[in-house]
Parts: sequence; C-alpha cells; structure tokens
Amino acid sequence: MSSKPYKLSYIAKYIGASLDGDDIEISSMKSLSSASNKDISFFYSNKFKEELSKTNAGAVITDKTNSKYFKGNKLIIDNVHLAYAKATDLFAESTFISEKKGLSPDAFISKESRLPDDVRVGPGCVIEKNVVIGKGSILFPNVTVLSNVSIGKNCIIHSGTVIGSDGLGFAKDENDQWKKINHLGKVIIRNDVEIGSNCTIDRGVLDDTIIEENVKLDDQVHIAHNCRIGKSTIMGANATIGGSTIIGENCMIGGLCGIADNLVITDQVIVSPVSFISKSIKKSGKYSGSAPLMPRKDWLKASASYKQISKKDK
Amino acid sequence: MSSKPYKLSYIAKYIGASLDGDDIEISSMKSLSSASNKDISFFYSNKFKEELSKTNAGAVITDKTNSKYFKGNKLIIDNVHLAYAKATDLFAESTFISEKKGLSPDAFISKESRLPDDVRVGPGCVIEKNVVIGKGSILFPNVTVLSNVSIGKNCIIHSGTVIGSDGLGFAKDENDQWKKINHLGKVIIRNDVEIGSNCTIDRGVLDDTIIEENVKLDDQVHIAHNCRIGKSTIMGANATIGGSTIIGENCMIGGLCGIADNLVITDQVIVSPVSFISKSIKKSGKYSGSAPLMPRKDWLKASASYKQISKKDK
Amino acid sequence: MSSKPYKLSYIAKYIGASLDGDDIEISSMKSLSSASNKDISFFYSNKFKEELSKTNAGAVITDKTNSKYFKGNKLIIDNVHLAYAKATDLFAESTFISEKKGLSPDAFISKESRLPDDVRVGPGCVIEKNVVIGKGSILFPNVTVLSNVSIGKNCIIHSGTVIGSDGLGFAKDENDQWKKINHLGKVIIRNDVEIGSNCTIDRGVLDDTIIEENVKLDDQVHIAHNCRIGKSTIMGANATIGGSTIIGENCMIGGLCGIADNLVITDQVIVSPVSFISKSIKKSGKYSGSAPLMPRKDWLKASASYKQISKKDK
Repeated sequence: MSSKPYKLSYIAKYIGASLDGDDIEISSMKSLSSASNKDISFFYSNKFKEELSKTNAGAVITDKTNSKYFKGNKLIIDNVHLAYAKATDLFAESTFISEKKGLSPDAFISKESRLPDDVRVGPGCVIEKNVVIGKGSILFPNVTVLSNVSIGKNCIIHSGTVIGSDGLGFAKDENDQWKKINHLGKVIIRNDVEIGSNCTIDRGVLDDTIIEENVKLDDQVHIAHNCRIGKSTIMGANATIGGSTIIGENCMIGGLCGIADNLVITDQVIVSPVSFISKSIKKSGKYSGSAPLMPRKDWLKASASYKQISKKDK
Repeated sequence: MSSKPYKLSYIAKYIGASLDGDDIEISSMKSLSSASNKDISFFYSNKFKEELSKTNAGAVITDKTNSKYFKGNKLIIDNVHLAYAKATDLFAESTFISEKKGLSPDAFISKESRLPDDVRVGPGCVIEKNVVIGKGSILFPNVTVLSNVSIGKNCIIHSGTVIGSDGLGFAKDENDQWKKINHLGKVIIRNDVEIGSNCTIDRGVLDDTIIEENVKLDDQVHIAHNCRIGKSTIMGANATIGGSTIIGENCMIGGLCGIADNLVITDQVIVSPVSFISKSIKKSGKYSGSAPLMPRKDWLKASASYKQISKKDK
Repeated sequence: MSSKPYKLSYIAKYIGASLDGDDIEISSMKSLSSASNKDISFFYSNKFKEELSKTNAGAVITDKTNSKYFKGNKLIIDNVHLAYAKATDLFAESTFISEKKGLSPDAFISKESRLPDDVRVGPGCVIEKNVVIGKGSILFPNVTVLSNVSIGKNCIIHSGTVIGSDGLGFAKDENDQWKKINHLGKVIIRNDVEIGSNCTIDRGVLDDTIIEENVKLDDQVHIAHNCRIGKSTIMGANATIGGSTIIGENCMIGGLCGIADNLVITDQVIVSPVSFISKSIKKSGKYSGSAPLMPRKDWLKASASYKQISKKDK
C-alpha cells in the first residue's frame, strides 16, 4: 500500500466506517497522545478520556456509543479494534524493503526446494532441501528452514526463527551415555500462520510437528517435536511447549508458560502468563498458575510457611 | 546411512534384536498410529494397547513381556527405547543435506581457526578467530561461534545458537553508570555434546565456561558466564542458568527452570519444569518448584490467601 | 588495548589504585584459583579466604580493609569491583577480531541506512532500510536490524539478536480469524546500551519502542512492542516484557521474569528471578514472586494443600 496520504473518505471506505466530519488528508496513524492533525487515531472506551481531552489527532476511529467524547472528525464503526487493524494496512511499509519481492541473492536456498514467484525471502535466510513454501509467504532475514519442512500460504516467519531442528530425543545406552534418537519427521505449517522472531519449531521424531491454520506465535516461542497446535491458537513470548503435546483451537497461552510433554489441551483454553501446565486440560476456560508477587520480606515469610505445609500432617 | 529399504533381518542385526516373523522389507519408521505395512514401529508397554489394536505396522520392536500384544512381525530385545534410538540411525537423512560434508562456502570462517576435514559447517555460520572444533562435529546453518571457543569431537550445534558471547557483567562507576566488565575467558565444550537451536552459551569473565562430555541441551537454553555443566546432564528448552553456577553429572533440568548464580548443584538432581532453584542442592533426588495450575477463579482466592500468610503472625 | 603484558604500576595508574609491592609484569587477569604468578586477580571480602590462602596470583586488586589477607603484591583502591571492571579493559581482545573496524563484506547492509565510519558490523548481520547507528557501536555477527530502527552511540548488540520485528498484534475479524495489525512504529535505542545474544526487541505498533541510555540486557530478553525501558535498568536472561509496559530507571529485573502488558513499574524496583509481575509497581524496593523449591514428595503435598485453599471458605 503506502501511497499515503489518504483522504479520510478513502480510509472510511477501506475499513467500512461512516465519516462524520471533514474529508481531510491523513498521512499516518498514531496513538491519541502522539497524533498530530495529519494523523488518525482510535479509541473504544471512555477510559481514554484523559488522552482524548489532550489529543491533536486530525481524526479518530470510534464507535457510536463513544463518539460523543470526541468533537473532531471521526470514522464511526461497530468493531473499532478490527477497523483499526484494517487501517494499519494503508500505512504499513515493509520492514525489509530491500527485497520488495522475490528471493534475496544473499539468502541460501537449496535448488531442491520449491518456492513460488511471490514468496519473499530476506537476506541471511537458509532454506534447505525439500522445503515447500506457499504463495504469498514472507520469510524475514536470517530465518533457518531445515529440510522437509512445508510452510503454507500467506505465512510470515520473523527473523532468527529456526524451523525443523531436531528436538531433545535421547536414550541411555549400555555405557550410560546418551544415544541420539534421529528425527525422521517433518514440520508442517498450514496457511496464514505468523511466527515471531527467534522461535524454535522442532521436527517430529517419527511423525510430524503440525501448526494449524491461523496460529499466531510471539517471539521466542518453543514448539517441541511432534506437537500439534490447533487453529487460531495464539501464544505469548517464550511460551514453551513440551514434546507430543496437542493443543486445541482458539487457545490463548500466556508468555513464559510451560506446557509439559504428552498432554492434550482442549479448545478455548486461556492460560495466564508464567504458568506451568503439568496435566491435560479437558474443560475450556481460564486458568492461572503463577505464584503471587510480594515485597521480598513478605515473600520470605510466605515461602517459609508454604514449605511447612508438607510437614504439618505428618 | 539411508540406503533404505532394509530387510527386517538387517535391522534386527543392527540393533541387536531377534527376529520373530517374516523377513519383510522396511522403508521407514513411524509411530504405531501412522505406520503402514512398509514401516517399523515400537512399543514397550501395554498402555499402547489401543494403538496396537489398530496399527498397520509391518513390524514392531518390543520386549519379550509385551510381545504377546502384537501378532505380526517383531524384533524382540530387552531395552526397546535404546533399540528404537539405534534403528533411527538407519532411516535418518541429514536435514541440511545441501552440505553433505565440509564447510559451506556460504559460511564465514576465520582463517585463524582450526577445523578438521570431516567437520560440517552449514551456510550462514560465523566462526571467529582461534576456534578449535573436533572431528565429526556438525554446525547447523546460522550458528555463531565467537573467538577462543573450543568444541570437542562429535558435537552437534543446532541453528541460531550463539557460543562465546559476553555475559551480563557490569560494575557501577563514579557517575552511577554501568561500566562493562570485559570477558577474557573462553567457552570449552567437550566431546559428544548436543546443543539445541537458538541457545546462548556465554564465555567466562576471567576463567572459562565449561560444558562437559555428553551434555544435551534443548532449544533456547541459556548458560551464563563461568558455568560448569557436568557430564551427561540434560536440560529442557529455555532452562536458564545463572553465572558461575556449577551443575553436577547426570542431572535433568526441566524446561523453563531458572537456576540462580553462584550455586552448586550436586550429581543426579532432577528438577521438574518451571522451577526456580535459588539455593545450592547437596542431595541427589527429585525437586519441584512450580505453583499449581488452577481455574482462574480458584487461583484468585488461593493467591489472595497466600499473600495473607505473611501478615498472620504479625 | 591488548599491548600486554603491563607493568603493575601501569595497571595501578589505569585503574587509579596505589601499588603496594614489586612492579612486576602482568600478562593476564584470572580468578584467585586459576591465576599464575604472571596474572592479576582481585577480592573484596574475607569470604575468599580459602582461595586466597592457595592462590598463585602475581598480584591482586583489593581494598585497605581486606589487604591484610594477602601478603604479595597488591593494588589498593576503595571500589574493588569497579577497579576490576576497568582492569579488564587492558586485557580484552575483540571476540570478532576478523573485522577489527568497519563493516564486514559478509554483512548485508541497505544503502539507505546511515552508519558512521567507526561502527563495526560483523559477518551475517542484516541491516535494513532507514537504520541509523551512532558512533562507536558494535554489532556482533548475525544480528538483524529491520528498517526504521535507530541505535545510539557506543552500543553493543550481541549475535542473533533481532531488533524491529513486528510484535504479537492481531484483531479477530468477521470470520473469527486473526487479522494482522501492521506495526508502523520504530525502535529507538539510546546511547551506551548493551543487548545480549538472541534477544528480540519489537517495533512499536503506532508509536515507538524505546530503550533508554545505559540499559543492559542479558541474552534472550524479550521486549514487546511499545515498551519503554528506563535509564540504567538491567535485566537477566529470558526476562520477558509485555506490550506497552513502561519500566523505570535503575531497575533490576531477574532472569525468566515475566512482566504483563500495559503496566507501569516505577524506578529502582528489584525483582528476583522467575517472578510474574501482573500489576503496576508504584513503590521502589525488592519484590519476589517465585514458588519455593522442595523435594518432590513435599511439593506434591504442598501443592495439594494450596489447591484446597480456594475451597475452604465456600
């Protein structure tokens, strides 16, 4: 996109909103507090009252109920959050513009892989043998895709991510040394998946690791061998999923959550950050598992008491 | 290897098992549920009863006790898990086959480093000055090895891993600004070590960081400056070890565990995932330190109570 | 530096200490236990008594109070820790010496970025469009800097780090699919910042992500979109900061800490490792939030009790 500035009426049409005000030119999108009179912003709640009273935004996106809080030009629509997401399309520029289309000459791509014309691969990427990538997908710079990985259409893989490494698989041998279990499986990533920076998605041992459609992973997420991650599930940064665990659809896994291996997590499970899931979850809903933060002197007492619990009923 | 298919008798001999059934041809290894009649699979417990009743596997590896549960061709051996690990050797292909042997021309390798002929270094790797790598070691694509690092024989370093960075070392100066402590130490990695993707192994400050023989690290593990990790210790993904901590032999550190700095952990310590080890451990055994997962509404109550403990005896 | 060896008197002058003993030649710096008679070491407490009694160090840095514990050559100064940090300057060699100065020909650098002459960029680095880097900064090998990122003077960015990726920003569309929120903001990194290996610093959505002067991040730290990290704050490995969170000056955030999104953490907050900060912190001080480690059999009991708390007052 990025043929900015845009007339407000053009933005209204693009996001499906109705224009209330003057049809001014808009050159960018900003938060209420940093927007100038050339910028559009958004809000969907009265909790932004203070920012609203001070904003210099040339226009805002908001809903009918909240529109009374802003006197200037506005685009009115029911789902403000989605409209805001759509509007960002208009102002986005590629962050690795150096390779607008196609494969960077500074990437290493095996001749034995199949990449359609419109796939973009940044400099420093390594794509090994027998990799298949679907139309419209983007690999940011310095991504590594080992052999026998398939990536769907319209996927985005951010920099530093490694797809298809071996997982942690070993057996103790006769001399009590670790013997490597070779990984014979693949990684299969379906359409419309986005994977953050410096993630690690391991290949399966015998069968495959599968990331279903529309899954969205933040940076530094780890998916171990043989996992299956269900459609539209989203995970926060550093979420760490153990081997062979199956996660349902539309789950939300908080950052720094650990999920043990060989579990089954049903659909629509929401887990708050820094929790350890050690058992399968059969019932949809919200779960938490972090210990509460306290001033250190209180925490010392609470920890000491907690350790005593196990001795009480002896 | 990979001159497949193999006769079942060949596989039996390779793993040291006895063949009970027909000497059919086997082209791959799969789990019980996905195996076809050209595939070999394995099981070592009656808990796989359901998969067994439905499997199409052409053959299985199992032990004497469990062999009665499968009517088809089988390879019988005491240690099924190890036999399965060995059998994967036969079916493994390199996942960066583009460089079957030797150093990728797309790697950056300092002329002042010493690499034997049979070391494999993938595209995108950077190997700085005074690096020594032992025979038979493999560096997957996009690994970074800074100067003065030594890596033993038959090591495997997965993509995106960084070995020999400076750690977090600073002193406050006269103006209350952080002054960098330069890192003068090395990283020494012994034989038969495998390090997962996107790990970070920092060099020592004055002395060296040492990873002993046969250590196995999952992806995204962090080993800080001056650590020593004992022989055959294994760590899950995102395990994070603080500076100067010494970990014994044959330990198993769960994923997302944090171990504070300057500790000594004895041999054969097993820590379950998402635990924080804040004190030295002198006694071998199993330890846990995560808070239990609960439905969020129960967790809110439990957290509130827990916070009260510290106030009770005031 | 590195025109070693140095006379002890030269080192004394460099760090501002007074020499007590012979003006011998010193070729390196080591810990008390590994120092030879050509090495200098340091100590600032009687807790090193045992190492002191056995050390072969040719000289030590120490303070007046503790100087009595060592009979050999010594450099005496009040702030031993800072003096030691300064002394490491003399013995440091670059760990990517292959590119002593300037930009590696094996880096990909957009012509539309501005890098002063004395910036060092290692092999495998990717620097996209509209990147500005200040004088004296060093990018270790395999760093990725996406477009519209600015990095101040004298910064150090370690290998594998990714600066300027999109964060986890999505809105559910009419078909219950995730719609990407494009990231229009920048990353701004001020002077004297050091960022460890394999970190991820996401660009802002509408406004910018800002890392203030003298911030020091360990390896694998994650800073989400729109965060602001205050001056001289330091974070341990794998610390994971949620979107739009603002952290004050001179904070110390332990390794594996998670901080939720949209929080405000005041200045001088110290949080011990593996804690989850779910609410804003308005008062400076020390906080902890990890569950205590226990032998597994005790932990099973304690966890069971803890889960019961929520049912007690029903």
